[in-house]
Amino acid sequence: MLTHLDSRGHAHMVDVTDKASTAREAEAEAWVRMRPQTLALIQKGGHPKGDVFAVARIAGIMAAKKTHELIPLCHPLLLTGIKVELSAEGEDRVRIVARCKLAGQTGVEMEALTAASVAALTLYDMCKAVDRGMLIEQVRLLEKKGGKSGHYRAGQAV
Amino acid sequence: MLTHLDSRGHAHMVDVTDKASTAREAEAEAWVRMRPQTLALIQKGGHPKGDVFAVARIAGIMAAKKTHELIPLCHPLLLTGIKVELSAEGEDRVRIVARCKLAGQTGVEMEALTAASVAALTLYDMCKAVDRGMLIEQVRLLEKKGGKSGHYRAGQAV
Amino acid sequence: MLTHLDSRGHAHMVDVTDKASTAREAEAEAWVRMRPQTLALIQKGGHPKGDVFAVARIAGIMAAKKTHELIPLCHPLLLTGIKVELSAEGEDRVRIVARCKLAGQTGVEMEALTAASVAALTLYDMCKAVDRGMLIEQVRLLEKKGGKSGHYRAGQAV
Amino acid sequence: MLTHLDSRGHAHMVDVTDKASTAREAEAEAWVRMRPQTLALIQKGGHPKGDVFAVARIAGIMAAKKTHELIPLCHPLLLTGIKVELSAEGEDRVRIVARCKLAGQTGVEMEALTAASVAALTLYDMCKAVDRGMLIEQVRLLEKKGGKSGHYRAGQAV
Amino acid sequence: MLTHLDSRGHAHMVDVTDKASTAREAEAEAWVRMRPQTLALIQKGGHPKGDVFAVARIAGIMAAKKTHELIPLCHPLLLTGIKVELSAEGEDRVRIVARCKLAGQTGVEMEALTAASVAALTLYDMCKAVDRGMLIEQVRLLEKKGGKSGHYRAGQAV
Amino acid sequence: MLTHLDSRGHAHMVDVTDKASTAREAEAEAWVRMRPQTLALIQKGGHPKGDVFAVARIAGIMAAKKTHELIPLCHPLLLTGIKVELSAEGEDRVRIVARCKLAGQTGVEMEALTAASVAALTLYDMCKAVDRGMLIEQVRLLEKKGGKSGHYRAGQAV
Repeated sequence: MLTHLDSRGHAHMVDVTDKASTAREAEAEAWVRMRPQTLALIQKGGHPKGDVFAVARIAGIMAAKKTHELIPLCHPLLLTGIKVELSAEGEDRVRIVARCKLAGQTGVEMEALTAASVAALTLYDMCKAVDRGMLIEQVRLLEKKGGKSGHYRAGQAV
Repeated sequence: MLTHLDSRGHAHMVDVTDKASTAREAEAEAWVRMRPQTLALIQKGGHPKGDVFAVARIAGIMAAKKTHELIPLCHPLLLTGIKVELSAEGEDRVRIVARCKLAGQTGVEMEALTAASVAALTLYDMCKAVDRGMLIEQVRLLEKKGGKSGHYRAGQAV
Repeated sequence: MLTHLDSRGHAHMVDVTDKASTAREAEAEAWVRMRPQTLALIQKGGHPKGDVFAVARIAGIMAAKKTHELIPLCHPLLLTGIKVELSAEGEDRVRIVARCKLAGQTGVEMEALTAASVAALTLYDMCKAVDRGMLIEQVRLLEKKGGKSGHYRAGQAV
Repeated sequence: MLTHLDSRGHAHMVDVTDKASTAREAEAEAWVRMRPQTLALIQKGGHPKGDVFAVARIAGIMAAKKTHELIPLCHPLLLTGIKVELSAEGEDRVRIVARCKLAGQTGVEMEALTAASVAALTLYDMCKAVDRGMLIEQVRLLEKKGGKSGHYRAGQAV
Repeated sequence: MLTHLDSRGHAHMVDVTDKASTAREAEAEAWVRMRPQTLALIQKGGHPKGDVFAVARIAGIMAAKKTHELIPLCHPLLLTGIKVELSAEGEDRVRIVARCKLAGQTGVEMEALTAASVAALTLYDMCKAVDRGMLIEQVRLLEKKGGKSGHYRAGQAV
Repeated sequence: MLTHLDSRGHAHMVDVTDKASTAREAEAEAWVRMRPQTLALIQKGGHPKGDVFAVARIAGIMAAKKTHELIPLCHPLLLTGIKVELSAEGEDRVRIVARCKLAGQTGVEMEALTAASVAALTLYDMCKAVDRGMLIEQVRLLEKKGGKSGHYRAGQAV
């Protein structure tokens, strides 16, 4: 049974009024694959050049706070910590890892996934003039702590 | 050279004041991979059950309109048409295709990519209680028309 | 046929790319019925007391600008004029009239209706501590000019 | 005395810092009156056709989360449950009922009223091309639980 | 050390998950200097004319609620009280004082400063057609209570 | 006469439907005064350390796009270019200059002023843990081009 649908299949925002408030944490990742020349453009000697990674980082942080405005059935919540990191991996990929924290009644998986996705889209935006074929891939939950369903950790990368 | 950075590497919103206003169109896709049981839950006899696809469709449409609030250096623009379609593919994947249109000074690639991404995240949200390991993959631009850079069409799926 | 659904019944944002940009105008009303004592509280000697009507007026104006964020299939647009007026009518009603203008490709009926509705809700909010039974009624389009469908004027109040 | 004005008539957001956090609940309704042909278009054999009711439902849910952005003096709050239902009534009306829940310091009447109003406006938007004379009526609070003022239940429909 | 940067200088939203929730309060001011004729236009016989101060007041209140959407590393929070006051000072200045309250894990200085700033910008907007040279000055924190850093009170005006 | 008020003193969004669309440009500044030790912390050897200036730059750019949501009577518009620059001045001040461009019916002064103000507030936010007494000062319009009122250039700093 999908929890977001009632018995008639109608969407609703799941009632969590009576759930306990506990410490929650979630980590998600997204990868952006690009041409080696594109990655070379955004970093130089191994260091990101100019504001590129900073813009993506901040876009991810701000998007995490907007999750409940984007995902219709997400509960509004008060994130207590957000971290978004980008790193060049190999010669043609950037990995984004987003981590969100909360003391509340619902998990923060969607916030971490939204932060990673929007950071990836922001990277795409800044590089699209030189590389339209970039690919965002493997957006997934890495880890989740807290709440009734307990600890979750993803397997190895697919 | 990355157009979104000035000579010192500082981010700015590219000046398009003098660009001509032309008809623009972009199409993007995203895929959500899930367990076959999960896909079976959201469709029944080949038809989506309840509001699941409708919620994702509407989330994608509304997100396209918010693109410039999410992607820091995107220009605000007035989309003239948005379409988001979801379809079950095989036994364990859902494909999302988003198409945006505009008569304006900038392309609408980011709007189509944002619509597809947020529709995918919404699908994840509705199914996450039964399948935390879902994967969003192959978020990419399929086609782009209009503007100085002309027609772009992606190659076959990687 | 409902224009907002495609042939399969799926919602989309109607494609207006090829519609001409013309001068548009729409006027809508909403009525708030309350106890005579409540109306007496918000006006004194025939004049609104303190900020009550001003707050509702501004809420209506700001809501008109947010219409496309609230109504999923509304096109974003650039209103060129918004006016919201409130007046006490008889001993127990307030009438709200909102007028929106635009030079664009779509009508502004939803913007005028949203402005009137949110102004009415704001009035309810400010008075609810003394009168929970207030009623918002007869929210409707009064007039519409411009666009292919031409001039529309509502009949007498029902 | 109106609680939202200070002694000089100036609007402010009422200080609730010291109010206890209790379970809150509110239910509101709105009615949309239309031509029988219009209602026939959006339902078929007694069942809503396509996405129409789903779009209105989701618009109402998302609007409830935006209430404090729309109503100037409303407190921001974290809704823990939202439900919006639409039903055809007779041959020419749709009834919308919205229910919001919260554990917090302020009531959620405005959230329920906003959800019902925006769902009604969304219905208007989707049908306006065939029926400009639709009427939104009887937007009102049906029930309210929790908080110092206790239980409120509206009388019979006016 | 700047708390908003990690050891590599990367921005993040500071983790406050483990901070105690305490009563917080902050007061900020902003001044708008204008030509005496401009101030005379917005007040008459010592009383503000029309909606001018009311619009600025409401803009300030609504902006306080939006602080975490504007300031990238600010935590979202649930203000429990907001007050914005404007007063004419001498013949050519308006003083704006904003006070915000919260029971939460982070201070509300940014909310008070944002409310004062946006009220000042709103005043500028309403008068700019007659006085482009207006100056917003001395935007600063006046007082702060609650939290680990304790009570802060600004010295005399600079 | 204040253009934003009608003959009764009621606020409205000025009707610009019939104004010509012309190229517009505005530049505004804001200054943040801080302790020399604070400025030393955010720059090192004359270069901004870590993400500090980048975060403020991006906050300013994103705020410019939100101006019409913050300033109640501002028209929504489609900025075609935004640039925000920060520079350390002397040993205890940071100067922020924001420039906005548009081809449209209204000026972009408020957008430039809002960008500069929010960048200044963001700087305050990142440094407030070490320096609560920072001061935002001299927020003003530097230059304005386009539109009926023609070219405006501010005099020397007051």
